Amino acid sequence: MLRRSFGLGVVAVGIAAATRAAFGQNDPLPSWNDGTVKMAILDFVSRTTSAGSRDFVLVPERIATFDNDGTLWTEMPVYFQFMFAIDRVKALAPQHPEWKDKPPFSYLLAGDMAGVAAMGEKGMVEVVAATHSGMTVADFERTVLDWLATARHARFKRPYTELVYQPMLELMALLRAKEFKTFIVSGGGIDFMRPWTEKIYGIPPEQVVGSSAVVTYDFNSGKPVLLKEPKVDFVDDGPGKPVGIYRFIGRRPVFAFGNSDGDQQMLEYTAGGEGARFMGLVHHTDAVREYAYDRQSSVGRLDKAWDEAVKRGWIVVDMKNDWKVIYPFEK
Amino acid sequence: MLRRSFGLGVVAVGIAAATRAAFGQNDPLPSWNDGTVKMAILDFVSRTTSAGSRDFVLVPERIATFDNDGTLWTEMPVYFQFMFAIDRVKALAPQHPEWKDKPPFSYLLAGDMAGVAAMGEKGMVEVVAATHSGMTVADFERTVLDWLATARHARFKRPYTELVYQPMLELMALLRAKEFKTFIVSGGGIDFMRPWTEKIYGIPPEQVVGSSAVVTYDFNSGKPVLLKEPKVDFVDDGPGKPVGIYRFIGRRPVFAFGNSDGDQQMLEYTAGGEGARFMGLVHHTDAVREYAYDRQSSVGRLDKAWDEAVKRGWIVVDMKNDWKVIYPFEK
Repeated sequence: MLRRSFGLGVVAVGIAAATRAAFGQNDPLPSWNDGTVKMAILDFVSRTTSAGSRDFVLVPERIATFDNDGTLWTEMPVYFQFMFAIDRVKALAPQHPEWKDKPPFSYLLAGDMAGVAAMGEKGMVEVVAATHSGMTVADFERTVLDWLATARHARFKRPYTELVYQPMLELMALLRAKEFKTFIVSGGGIDFMRPWTEKIYGIPPEQVVGSSAVVTYDFNSGKPVLLKEPKVDFVDDGPGKPVGIYRFIGRRPVFAFGNSDGDQQMLEYTAGGEGARFMGLVHHTDAVREYAYDRQSSVGRLDKAWDEAVKRGWIVVDMKNDWKVIYPFEK
Repeated sequence: MLRRSFGLGVVAVGIAAATRAAFGQNDPLPSWNDGTVKMAILDFVSRTTSAGSRDFVLVPERIATFDNDGTLWTEMPVYFQFMFAIDRVKALAPQHPEWKDKPPFSYLLAGDMAGVAAMGEKGMVEVVAATHSGMTVADFERTVLDWLATARHARFKRPYTELVYQPMLELMALLRAKEFKTFIVSGGGIDFMRPWTEKIYGIPPEQVVGSSAVVTYDFNSGKPVLLKEPKVDFVDDGPGKPVGIYRFIGRRPVFAFGNSDGDQQMLEYTAGGEGARFMGLVHHTDAVREYAYDRQSSVGRLDKAWDEAVKRGWIVVDMKNDWKVIYPFEK
């Protein structure tokens, strides 16, 4: 019904007919409102996966990459991984009496978030280093899962893993049904994501690319362990994203989705390949159901990448208008 | 016939019966001679993939890792990647007149391999850096493929990619048929392997873990490129192998195969997990059909890892006796 009431003229009708031919009467993206964005997605998937199509992409080349924070789940009021780090500082404080007088830990423990914010990236790096190293990778994984099981988002009063975007879950399922391999390529910590991405997104650990700290191997008297060190290994953000994609995947994506300036190079790199390409950005426009932010935001800023998207004809999702529901629990 | 003539007593007969039950009358490893090694492999695959088995492994956890040099293809008289580097030095020499007087390049160009060898790892690193950096990753890939298309192994007079081990191809095919994901985890360069591993081994680029140099992203006036820099990023050898497995795959293998001391930590790490595990080493014992070397070899030394294998009951393949054929072209 919705589709019939939506009109983009002859071209859109043609696309809709082709899409119906490819996907049948079952709408693979029920949480997306009909419109140019949904059409562009369905058209791309149809063109690249239909035998005989001029834009057909061989199955092994069907690589789709997704940013995580702000693209697959919410990133406000602050990246969820930083919320995890803050909770870890609180939990570990009794073992670190020196933190009482040492910023940014002292600010954090006093609830002075403005003080932490004023320290900028330096403060955040110190907090992450202190809470993400000095343990085995197995212990860290357990800590992440324990936290996700109990922590709640202040505004939504729900576990963070419920704050994933239903339309993006449907998009990834559609791509996988059409034999795309879906990858996460995130500035977030790879060790923070892998424990839960398979269950929540259907993306296995070996298809998660992210930032990382140095890990060292220790035979540990016959019980081999991997230890997390307080030293940055790789930052998978901005120009690091094409590097991470190349290093971990070894193929250029044909489909990439992000939401911020940190995704610009991933989309550029995707666009730079031969043949059909899809580049998408999620624009957070819905202050009522989620958050509205772009050029001025310190978290997930969308400024230069937006200009690039407009200039180059990349797809920009208007969250408020393009998404029928935001979260799975709204259904 | 062979199987009937092979007797290990009641236990082996039981395994053979179970294996026949799991694999039918079609031998999935026709290039392996019947014996304890073949039995151990078939038994492990059967136990870990048969519904209801005590050792059943869930499909997502079926991770199998293989070293490359000396495990999947020949590594004598010297790692094939080093042969590639030598040929590149010769090809690039006209653009580098300074090499005429600069070891190790001068030794190489004069054919003085003893001189190069006397420089040890330092010489090899210099040769690799000079031939593996200063170009885009796309140009490097083309160079590797061009070289493989024309270069021939001095003893076998065949392309290097024909010097892969038929029994290991069968083993990887068996594992994949049983829903294992097969990965390469090699000390060799990731950029040197990925261009051809899918075609030769059936292992796609995203399942290749290896050593790497730093790669940087350059937007290059609208044509994004990745550039190979003369700086080591990661050495995927020895204790680096568990680190590389953790970083790239994010799961502990249940099945791992190597051939040298550089694989010891990968096997230790594999063995350290819960449940059924398979750890294997290829012992090069066949000077007639391939090469015979172990404790004294500078290439692919098998010394400490062999002792560990004996101590811990890891499987050691006796190439001469366990493999009916070595290379695909012998069939």
